[in-house]
Amino acid sequence: MPVLVMKFGGTSVANVDRIRRAAKRVGVEVAKGYDVIVIVSAMSGKTNELVGWVNEISPLYDAREYDAVVSSAENVTAGLMALVLQEMDVPARSWQGWQVPVRTTSAHASARIEEIPTDNINSRFADGMKVAVVAGFQGISPEGRTTTLGRGGSDTTAVAFAAAFDAERCDIYTDVDGVYTTDPRITDKARKLDRIAFEEMLELASLGAKVLQTRSVELAMRYGVRLRVLSSFEEMSDNAGTLVCAEEDIMESKVVNGIAFSRDEAKMTLISVADRPGIAAAIFGPLAEAGINVDMIVQNISEEGRTDMTFSCPVDQVLRAEKTLQKAKDSGEINYHDLVADQNVSKVSAVGIGMRSQSGVAAKMFKTLSDEGVNIKVIATSEIKISVLIDRKYVELAVQALHDAFELEKP
Amino acid sequence: MPVLVMKFGGTSVANVDRIRRAAKRVGVEVAKGYDVIVIVSAMSGKTNELVGWVNEISPLYDAREYDAVVSSAENVTAGLMALVLQEMDVPARSWQGWQVPVRTTSAHASARIEEIPTDNINSRFADGMKVAVVAGFQGISPEGRTTTLGRGGSDTTAVAFAAAFDAERCDIYTDVDGVYTTDPRITDKARKLDRIAFEEMLELASLGAKVLQTRSVELAMRYGVRLRVLSSFEEMSDNAGTLVCAEEDIMESKVVNGIAFSRDEAKMTLISVADRPGIAAAIFGPLAEAGINVDMIVQNISEEGRTDMTFSCPVDQVLRAEKTLQKAKDSGEINYHDLVADQNVSKVSAVGIGMRSQSGVAAKMFKTLSDEGVNIKVIATSEIKISVLIDRKYVELAVQALHDAFELEKP
Repeated sequence: MPVLVMKFGGTSVANVDRIRRAAKRVGVEVAKGYDVIVIVSAMSGKTNELVGWVNEISPLYDAREYDAVVSSAENVTAGLMALVLQEMDVPARSWQGWQVPVRTTSAHASARIEEIPTDNINSRFADGMKVAVVAGFQGISPEGRTTTLGRGGSDTTAVAFAAAFDAERCDIYTDVDGVYTTDPRITDKARKLDRIAFEEMLELASLGAKVLQTRSVELAMRYGVRLRVLSSFEEMSDNAGTLVCAEEDIMESKVVNGIAFSRDEAKMTLISVADRPGIAAAIFGPLAEAGINVDMIVQNISEEGRTDMTFSCPVDQVLRAEKTLQKAKDSGEINYHDLVADQNVSKVSAVGIGMRSQSGVAAKMFKTLSDEGVNIKVIATSEIKISVLIDRKYVELAVQALHDAFELEKP
Repeated sequence: MPVLVMKFGGTSVANVDRIRRAAKRVGVEVAKGYDVIVIVSAMSGKTNELVGWVNEISPLYDAREYDAVVSSAENVTAGLMALVLQEMDVPARSWQGWQVPVRTTSAHASARIEEIPTDNINSRFADGMKVAVVAGFQGISPEGRTTTLGRGGSDTTAVAFAAAFDAERCDIYTDVDGVYTTDPRITDKARKLDRIAFEEMLELASLGAKVLQTRSVELAMRYGVRLRVLSSFEEMSDNAGTLVCAEEDIMESKVVNGIAFSRDEAKMTLISVADRPGIAAAIFGPLAEAGINVDMIVQNISEEGRTDMTFSCPVDQVLRAEKTLQKAKDSGEINYHDLVADQNVSKVSAVGIGMRSQSGVAAKMFKTLSDEGVNIKVIATSEIKISVLIDRKYVELAVQALHDAFELEKP
């Protein structure tokens, strides 16, 4: 039998009634002839309740005990989902991470899946079981303790099962109906994409379109898992949602497929840094160690052995970045004249795999922003993405203008 | 190091603040030099929430999935308790049933513990761990699935660990401060007992004094585990609570140690039953199969080959008992003239190991009730207990009079 993986997020299993509705979707796929692996999240709110208790006890908690506590919420949903399916006369049972077992690293609270043996569940499929309901987000360490995969980890569980069981597809049921060309709250011209390439999805996810956990997309790309994002709250249909797939599965792709943005960025500039080999490592090494998420980096032309170095980071990390750099300056590791932080910038990005083969995208983007009177502060590009930092007050205007310029409202 | 088992019930771990208070008690015992095994229940209300969801899905649920769901609540408390202890600098870790492993039968939702290997936890004690926090109520079946021990099962977990680890004592922390001579709501002369014999506790527990799960007392008696029932909400002291122990550990025992009662009983009489060998089995076999908790049984003198048979059962089982007996009559298995049910009776019992060696207890009990004008409808006796059925309206009067007559208010 072909295997299908279906993952239901927290809002899709928020109460018994919702679990029933999710189970009906599972029943439809079983009726089509699939053996189904259902991955469930915690009922919405439950993980936050558990994490809240842990933090109330200790902000510096033992991650092994954190995992023991928070993993319990998915066990509840898995058992309830199995019961609902049985009540519908669909042969089903639940599995907890240690029962499969989902073998992970020992990195508690952010473990990585290393192996998912399939014999256990496959032998039950062979015996007539139609649905294996698996508690998402959790696994077991080499030491035999429960691990968790980090917030949003159930997406990764789902993709890993799809890869291990060579599933035909991995359907991620959530509370949005797919991936959009941009945030529909910014422009009502935003359009749902039927298909998007893994690479594009990765850029969109890490740029703040929080539909899927980034790691799950990476994993899907590596193992060629066809991933579909769709809503639990809409009618079922074959072309519902957005299919995240390999580039070659997309017949014709636009040059730009989405405009992403990240509102709360900061731009930091180190003025007059001594320009010598290894200076970038001396600056960004300590920042990485301090956990600063440095994003864009720009170095100006060097003059008389000195240069300006600019980078961006989330606005709530500015203070930490300043302290880290001051410390490095005090210890003589780096030398600079001044440090200037602009906390009122946002990042806007155009993303599309078509850029690879098409020139002029950057020029069009810059002209569009210029026509609207938006000043570009920093530019960074990758093969399939062009990002700019602009004043925060222009972010809606810029997104709308770029969405229009690249005609993203048209299918 | 001597081992102490401490069990905390749901109200004792109802929130983070209560868990902290419970952990302080654990810290005191660790400071005395004990290696402590803490058994925790679910935070109060949590198990009911989970059971509610299961029942909402299906009244005829798969007990394996029921167990997967409801066992999760104890995992939460175990992890939180370990975190609190670590925060107090007490080396601690949590254990779930499958990790110890607590090996049980496959009788899901009412499994029995078969084996608790000690090497795993003992090797951690040898490494310097001071507290093993174990999720109560749960274990693992031979098939590798999570089992639970039935409501109140954490008491049984605690006693089983105390037996397996040869613990010096098993302290059961609850929301009452011990075992009383009778329900203090009936008479303010009710007195807390310092010590009570296992046998007496068993009679009191099964008679409705719901301080301890009956099975935990049986297990403690079999393995000679000294069991102390005490309150989480009172000052710690060496003679707090009630010690449930072997008869020989009680210096001098009164003839009667407690007056128990069970309010909602029914008395059922089969009139003119054909008196032949095997007639009792023919009546009570089907009742047992139907799950009727038949308690007292009385058979009158036989006349002309026919007799009357009277038994008692909980009042909410009367309808089921009547249907069961009617069915047995219709199928010709038994024959009787009429079935009369009296649903307005209560059971009152005097319990005490001293009865064994002292006569006149029954006479004193009957005279006391007679003096109060209370009519006795059925009498049943065991070695250490005398029970009577009386009209429900007299139950408070009877308990108060018997408590006075046996001078239970005096230490």
